[in-house]
Parts: sequence; structure tokens; C-alpha cells
Amino acid sequence: GARVMYDFSAEPGNNELTVNEGEIITITNPDVGGGWLEGRNSKGERGLVPTDYVEILPSDGKDQFACGNSVADQAFLDSLSASTAQANASATNSSNQVSSGSDPWSAWNASKPANWESSDSWGAKPEGATAQRSAANNWDSAFGHPQAYQGPATGDDDDWDEDWDEPKSSPYFKDSESAEAGGAQRGNSRATSSSMKLPLNKFPGFAKPGMEQYLLAKQLAKPKEKIPIIVGDYGPMWVYPASTFDCVVADPRKGSKMYGLKSYIEYQLTPTNTNRSVNHRYKHFDWLYERLLVKFGSAIPIPSLPDKQVTGRFEEEFIKMRMERLQAWMTRMCRHPVISESEVFQQFLNFRDEKEWKTGKRKAEKDELVGVMIFSTMEPEAPDLDLIEIEQKCDAVGKFTKAMDDGVKELLNVGQEHWKRCTGPLPKEYQKIGKALQSLATVFSSSGYQGETDLNDAITEAGKTYEEIASLVAEQPKKDLHFLMECNHEYKGFLGCFPDILGAHKGAIEKVKESDKLVATSKITPQDKQNMVKRVGTMSYALQAEMNHFHSNRIYDYNSVIRLYLEQQAQFYETIAEKLRQALSRFPVM
Amino acid sequence: GARVMYDFSAEPGNNELTVNEGEIITITNPDVGGGWLEGRNSKGERGLVPTDYVEILPSDGKDQFACGNSVADQAFLDSLSASTAQANASATNSSNQVSSGSDPWSAWNASKPANWESSDSWGAKPEGATAQRSAANNWDSAFGHPQAYQGPATGDDDDWDEDWDEPKSSPYFKDSESAEAGGAQRGNSRATSSSMKLPLNKFPGFAKPGMEQYLLAKQLAKPKEKIPIIVGDYGPMWVYPASTFDCVVADPRKGSKMYGLKSYIEYQLTPTNTNRSVNHRYKHFDWLYERLLVKFGSAIPIPSLPDKQVTGRFEEEFIKMRMERLQAWMTRMCRHPVISESEVFQQFLNFRDEKEWKTGKRKAEKDELVGVMIFSTMEPEAPDLDLIEIEQKCDAVGKFTKAMDDGVKELLNVGQEHWKRCTGPLPKEYQKIGKALQSLATVFSSSGYQGETDLNDAITEAGKTYEEIASLVAEQPKKDLHFLMECNHEYKGFLGCFPDILGAHKGAIEKVKESDKLVATSKITPQDKQNMVKRVGTMSYALQAEMNHFHSNRIYDYNSVIRLYLEQQAQFYETIAEKLRQALSRFPVM
Repeated sequence: GARVMYDFSAEPGNNELTVNEGEIITITNPDVGGGWLEGRNSKGERGLVPTDYVEILPSDGKDQFACGNSVADQAFLDSLSASTAQANASATNSSNQVSSGSDPWSAWNASKPANWESSDSWGAKPEGATAQRSAANNWDSAFGHPQAYQGPATGDDDDWDEDWDEPKSSPYFKDSESAEAGGAQRGNSRATSSSMKLPLNKFPGFAKPGMEQYLLAKQLAKPKEKIPIIVGDYGPMWVYPASTFDCVVADPRKGSKMYGLKSYIEYQLTPTNTNRSVNHRYKHFDWLYERLLVKFGSAIPIPSLPDKQVTGRFEEEFIKMRMERLQAWMTRMCRHPVISESEVFQQFLNFRDEKEWKTGKRKAEKDELVGVMIFSTMEPEAPDLDLIEIEQKCDAVGKFTKAMDDGVKELLNVGQEHWKRCTGPLPKEYQKIGKALQSLATVFSSSGYQGETDLNDAITEAGKTYEEIASLVAEQPKKDLHFLMECNHEYKGFLGCFPDILGAHKGAIEKVKESDKLVATSKITPQDKQNMVKRVGTMSYALQAEMNHFHSNRIYDYNSVIRLYLEQQAQFYETIAEKLRQALSRFPVM
Repeated sequence: GARVMYDFSAEPGNNELTVNEGEIITITNPDVGGGWLEGRNSKGERGLVPTDYVEILPSDGKDQFACGNSVADQAFLDSLSASTAQANASATNSSNQVSSGSDPWSAWNASKPANWESSDSWGAKPEGATAQRSAANNWDSAFGHPQAYQGPATGDDDDWDEDWDEPKSSPYFKDSESAEAGGAQRGNSRATSSSMKLPLNKFPGFAKPGMEQYLLAKQLAKPKEKIPIIVGDYGPMWVYPASTFDCVVADPRKGSKMYGLKSYIEYQLTPTNTNRSVNHRYKHFDWLYERLLVKFGSAIPIPSLPDKQVTGRFEEEFIKMRMERLQAWMTRMCRHPVISESEVFQQFLNFRDEKEWKTGKRKAEKDELVGVMIFSTMEPEAPDLDLIEIEQKCDAVGKFTKAMDDGVKELLNVGQEHWKRCTGPLPKEYQKIGKALQSLATVFSSSGYQGETDLNDAITEAGKTYEEIASLVAEQPKKDLHFLMECNHEYKGFLGCFPDILGAHKGAIEKVKESDKLVATSKITPQDKQNMVKRVGTMSYALQAEMNHFHSNRIYDYNSVIRLYLEQQAQFYETIAEKLRQALSRFPVM
């Protein structure tokens, strides 16, 4: 048997079973795949239940499931040991970062970056990605947009997602390609949605290239995909394409598969430059996100996708919100000169048929210019930098992004509190004022005294005005606070990527610092060392270019969103004042 | 020993002792008079503490003080048994009403006025005023104006008041006149501040005149003070004097007596017709209130005075609030054609010296035209009414005043809740929004990116604007909600008087209904009965006149106060909108 930990409402016609918290069900199939198990309730009804929603009871006799761990937890641990074995102890810089636990910024809170020196020292072999799971999705639990909250499951449904319904070992369905991606999904979704955690060891061909390879390679490949960095008025910058494009995400449609057993939502994507649409499911977005993260994540913050969500995932409100956020994410990506021009991104938007999509998908997954190797594609047209300058730039970025992260969190906290008040107690109170005034007018009308009709009508109208104000107050956050929250939510996502980006930079700087010893012991040549400094300089130029991109976007975004907020707020208060003046005008003058 | 139930802060130089809730003190003198006891704390400090603030511990050996009862409770019970004895079982109509407990409206909630028939039947002897104490001051605990709340004692300090500091059995001071009034004060303040409970048995010469005396007197005295009732466009009405006056309450000053042991506040009263000032302490207002209640309370609702208060009674805010309410009370009284023209009221405002005041005071206390006898001064110039009509009028007034009481309570409840939110969480939240915006601007300023100074200055200003809005929000209730609350507070006071007024009427109607039996058994003559009907008719005309006065005031007052509220609210929202537009205008256009 298993105890249900959260309420789960079955989608009609979806072969699911509605269960309630505390209910005990019998497991008839512990893993039908895709994060589902089949169970039977006390009434004998059978159906699918998310594995995450139940905990196996010890009396079940299966000791390998510890009490208190969900089936999904166990499945996760299983898949993890498999992927850890697969990764066979290859060292990556990114895997060091995840050991800092749930706060990606903890390294920056320490007065000295002791983390880098101790765990990232030359030749050390980190233990792979085992710590990734502990990087809980802080953002979502602490700063989640209240409108996105739909039921108690949101904090716990990251490990599986309906849209990612091609199971690793499904009895119904076998597809090694999607199974692999599914595994990555399962193992990394918590980590990646919080801050960028490169799941490099999951991708064949990437386990090898580490920081050493980039810094010490005798000659960097000159790939076709060269990423230029120039020096403009504001310093180093990416080269912006002559024509830009956006991508319209629209028309979410429900589809189904597995003989109708599972359903999903498909979105229509239309790039504004081609005006030719492609369809993608959420899991494809997730695939793109992960590819971008693997490829550009050391240089460019890739904000995570909007939350996956189980409960109410087909509810209109949720679909609308997710689409809005997917739209925002796509727009961000389209706006970025490096991302938008990349092959993987272009291919995602422009494939012509299923075959072309699959081919492109495979090609992207075999790309070896990922992780820190992305810097090998960059050749800044700029003078070499010295190490002190590089380090100062890096520290400044760390200081700024940490401080902005704090500021954004503060605003999100306050905004969430304000949202709750504006949609909850405040309109209720205005409604009560309205009702009380109307009650009073009704009483007054019963006085039998002559000549007070005008007054009583006016009081009734004033009461109705307060009821209208109640609605205005309750609806207003969607018109202004919503956008302020969404903007900060997005920036929170960006900022959460910086600990990893800066980690790569700090790691490179440390390696250069330690390279004198290697020169002294003839492990590398002086020329090697010179190359290293030049390459760390390239990284620094990339960081500066990205920061300049970040700042110009930030200034534009915050200017826009605060202007919008103030404009909407002013209009809101003006509307209320007008309504009150109108109510006032109905009172007789005595 | 005794346990302190509420914090009490000593007034400096006032021989008082600061004590804290839960503290155990030794009682050195259980009753120094005026509601004070003398105690000693664990540090050996001695001083006066309000008896209401402590409970006697059983270990003290004085079994007559039950645990959980305050010293004041005991003193109250003592004084009550004395006055009950004094009243020697004289029947008054008013004393029946108080048996309905804490809700003066309970008789009106019942579908049939069973109360009148059962307990007010001819010749029954109610048990006096013993039930008065249970008529707790509901208004103050449930609907008290939040601004008036200053510490936990407000609900419990009715039984004694600093301003009524002439104790009944003080070791320092003997004054039989004030002691008598003090006894009435002590025994009735709870009841009278909730709804009018005629303390008739306290006043020599009044214990006698009951409803029978008025209804059955062969010939009514034709006193000089005749109260005319005419029939105008709106029905029966009082005759309004040609010139009206108001009375300005101002200049509260602290005085002291008992060798500086006790202090009080004295107010300056200036009637606008004479422009000659007199000074009165709160206890004099209380005396006037009680005289008006005794004399006119069966015909005219006399709203109770603003709450007496212990904690912070010399604090500026409290003095200001009490004066404002005393002013409102005096204005109400001046506005009433019967009250304002009465001898007792005129004498209160126009005595020339201490001697004249004392003489007038004694005369007023000896007045026998009190209670229902007030109706003997009224001779309506109108046709006689039949009993059915009289009863319908009475029921209609009961229905209306009960319904309005409910409506007013609802508005007060809502208003109090709104007040709390507007002065508490809401401005705090705006302040947080302001701070969060300013923090963000500070972070942005540290970016090192060029050309964002304008944006950051604008965000800082927007943040400051939200801090200003926080202040506006917190201050606003004083400008609008305050007056709405005060107005409803006043009307709550009026409406609380109606159960007693209507009780007198119902009682009279019942007696007339039962009079046929008395005629049949020759206990009264048919002429007696005819007189009775005529006199109940007089009462009905008085009620209708008073209701017309009430309605015209109500219409004027509610029109004014809701207009004021809406006007102030509209201005408030306009101000906020303006400030937001100003903040918006500082943002650079991109």
C-alpha cells in the first residue's frame, strides 16, 4: 500500500484516479512510466496517480522504499546512481558549484571565495552531479508568483511533468532518445529551475572538455560559428544582428498520445522574420532550454522556463499564464544576439518536418562546443587584459548581481504580500463598506419620514460605488503589479545563473594563478601560460559583453515596467476618485 | 496581597504606583476612596492603584472578596445592596427593562412583547435595580472607536473615574451630596452608558411616581415648565425656539485637589447666546447627563457621555478626543428644543458663581417632574388618538430604531476593521514598496553602466512617493472615517435609549388594555380609563414629535457626514494619483 501525500484530482477521460491526502491506496503497478503509478483505492477504483504524490508504506514489504520517501524520490535516486556511474567521475567546473546547496550565492556571501580554492583546485576530481538534487528551487517556493499557485503540489511536482510523458522504462513505449532526455529532466529539473546547473555529464562527448582543455588547448578550433566581440562606447559588446526578430507563442492546443492515456498541450510558435509556424510541446522548450544551458551557460545567463505544474495543468488560467511566460522567455532569447543567431535556436524555430527536427535535435546533442568551450568560439577584437583587471571585473559583476538579486527578491517579497492584500482582504472590506451603506439606506427608507428619498438613493449609490471599488481593487494587480512581478521574476531567473557563470570565471582565474607552479615544474610551457591568460581575457570580454547586454536590457525593462506600473496605478486611483465624485454628486445639498 | 490584572502607569506627582499585569502587590489600604486602593510593590514602593486593576488573592484571608472579582466589583456589590435596600421595593417601569440583560433590544427581538405582559403586569413588584449591573456596556467593547482605545483598561474602567474623585466613604473627604451622586455613578455607569437605565430609585421623591401615578392622576399639575407639542407638516412636533444657541467646549485645563493627590481636567463652556463662560469638570457633565436622563429619559433619548478613561487620561490625544465628544454631546443637547430650553440645562450653562451652581444643583435633584411624569407637562394641541393607532406608532418606532441600530452597528464594525487596516498593515506595505524601489535604485547605481542616472533618480523618487503614500494612507482615516465613525457612534448612543423609551410606552399601553378589568371591578371609574387613554395619547404624540426631531437630525447628519466622507476620499485618491503622475513624469522616455 501507499499513503497519499497530496490531493490529486483526476483529469476526466485521462485514466487518472482522484485521491485525497491521507488516503491509503494499493499499488497495482509501481511504475507505468512518465512519473505515474497505477493504484486502486478502497472503493476498488483503479487509475493513474503521480508517483510524487504518494509515499510507500513500510508494511508493503518492499524495504528498498524507505518510509517517507516518495516513489519518485526512489526513482530519482535510482536514475541518479545510473547517471553518476555513466559520468564516471569526470571533472566539470559546474559540478563544483552545486555543492554549495540551495543558495547559489553562498560562495558570494563568504568574504573570501574559499570555495574555489578548496574544491576547484587543479586536478581535483569532484564527485559528479550527486549534489544537484539538494539545490532546491528556492525561487519558486519563496518568490513564486501567487497567481501561479494552484494547489499544494506546485512545490513538489518538479521531478515529473505530464508534458514529459515519455517514460524511461515504460511498459507501453520505448524510445531511447526521449528516455535519455527524460532522465535528465527528472534528475535536473529542480536544480536547473533554481539556477543554472550544467547537466554536462548527461551528454555524450561533453564529459571530457573541462576548463583545462579550453585554457591549455594548443590551438583552438576555428569553427564556422564564430561569436564576435567588439569594443563599443560602453566597452566590450556582442555584435547585434542587422535585423532582429521575435517569436509569437500562441494557440495552445490539447493533444493526446498513448492511446489517449496521456494528454499534453502544444503551442504554436511563429518567428516574426519567417512568419512560418512550428508546433512545440513544453518538453521541447525544455529540451531547448537544456541545450542552450549546456552550450552557452558558462557565458550567458539562460533563465529557466516557467514552472512545470501538475494540478490544474489544463485549466485555462494556468495555460494562459504558462504561455505568457513561454512568450516572455522566447522574446528574451530572440533578443539575445548570441542565442538568437545560434544554430540550435534557429533550428528549433525553423525545421520543416519531423525528420528535419529529429536530425537537428541529434546534431545539437552531439555538439562538442559546449560548456567552457564556448569561449573558444570567441575572438574579441580588443587588447589583451591583465589578470588583476580580469579579476576586478569578475568581482564587480559578482557584487552587482548578488546585490541586484537581493533587491529583486525584496521587491518580489513585498509585491507578493501586496498582491495578497489587494486581491484578498482589501476588496472584501470595500465590499463590506458598500453593503453596510446599502443596508443603512434600506433602513432609512423604512422610516416613514417624508422627503428623504434623494438621500437614501444617494447612499445606496455610494454603497454600490464601494462595491465597484472592491472589484477595481481586486482586478488592479493583474493590470500593474503582475507585470512588475513578472519582470522581477525574469530577472531573478537571470541573476540565479550568475553564480555558475562567475564560478567558471573564478575557476579559470585560479588556474592561471596556479599556473606559475606548473611552469616551474615544467608541466606546462611559458607559452601555455600566456595562452591561458589570453583565454581568461577572452572570457572576461565575454562577461563584459554579456553584462553590457544585461544592463541595457535591464535599464530598458525596468524603465518600461515601472512606468507601466505608475501609469496604471495613477489611472486606478483616478478612476476611484472619479467614481467617488460621481457618487458624491448624487447627494442632495441641504 | 492582590494580583495586578492590567498595566497601570502612574501619573507623575500624583501619588500613584506604576504596576504591571501579573505583579503581586500588598494592599495597605483597600479603599482610600474614589476607586483607589493603596498598595505596596515588591520593591517597597507605595502608592495608589485603581481598585479595578487588581484582583484580591484568596490567600489574603478576606473571604468576602471572591477570587477573580476586583476590589471595585466588591465595592460595587456593597453599594448596590445599600441602594437596593434604600429603594425598598418600589416599582418602576424602567427597572423591568434591565432584566433583559445586556441587549437592550432583546424585548424587540421576540415576536410578541411577552416581556411587558409577564413582568409588567399591574401591581407586580419588580425586584429593583439588581439586574442593572449585568447590562454590560456592549457598545464600548464591541464598537468602541479604535482611536479611543488606549490600553487594555478601557472596557473595565467604567466603575470608577478619576474625575469622579469624591469617594463615598473616603477617609480624607466627606460630602454627602457628592457621595450620593457618586453612588449612582458607581452603580449605574455601566448600564447608563450602554442604554438608558433610569436610576430613579436613587433620587428621593422619585421612588413614588410610577406609570400609575401619571396615568391615573385625577388632575395633572400645570407646571410653569409646559412642553408644547404642535402638529406640523410632518406630523406632531416639538416647538422650536425662535433663536437657537450652541455651546463651545474648549480650553481643557488640569486642576488638582486633595492636596495635589488627585488631579482632573476642567473644560470651559461658552454658550453662543450669552458668550459668558462657565467651567465644568467631567463629573459635572456626568451629573447633567444623569439629571437629563432622569427627567427626560422616558420621552427623549439622552445619549451617554463619552467614555471615561483611566489610562492616558491626561494624554493630549485623549483629552482632545474627549473634548471633541463632549462638544458633540453639548451641541446635540443645545440642538434639542426641549432639552435646551429646560431649567436644568440652562442652569448648567448660566450659573454665576459656586453658590448659584450648588443651589441650582440641589433644586434639580429635588425635581419631581421626572420619569414618566414628564409627560404631565405636555399638552398636545391635537385630537385624541385611539389605542390601536398608538400601538401601531409605537411598534413602528421600535421596528425602525432596532433596524437602524443593526445598520449602525454593521457600519461601525466595518469601519473599525477598515480603520485598523488603513492605519496598520496597508501603510506598512506601501512603505515596504517604497523601500524596495529605493534599494533597487541604489543597486542599479552601483552597476558602473553609463547613462542610467536619470532612471535611478526616477526610481528613487518613485520609492519616496510610495513612502509618502504610506503616510497619506495612515493619516486619511482621521480626515474622513473618523467623522463617519463618530456620527454612527452618536447614533448608536441615541438608539440604545429607545428600548427604555419604548418600554415606558408599551407599559402604558398594557395598563390601558388591562384597565377594562379594573373598571369592571370598580377599582377605577370609566372617567379614569378615558383619562388613561388620553394620557397614553399624549405619550404617543411626544414619541412622534421626538421621532420627527430624530429623523430630521438623522437626515441632516448622515447627509453631511457621508458627503464629507466621499469628498475627503475623492480628494485622497486624487492626491495619490497626482503624486504618482509626478513620479511617473521623472522617468526618461526611451
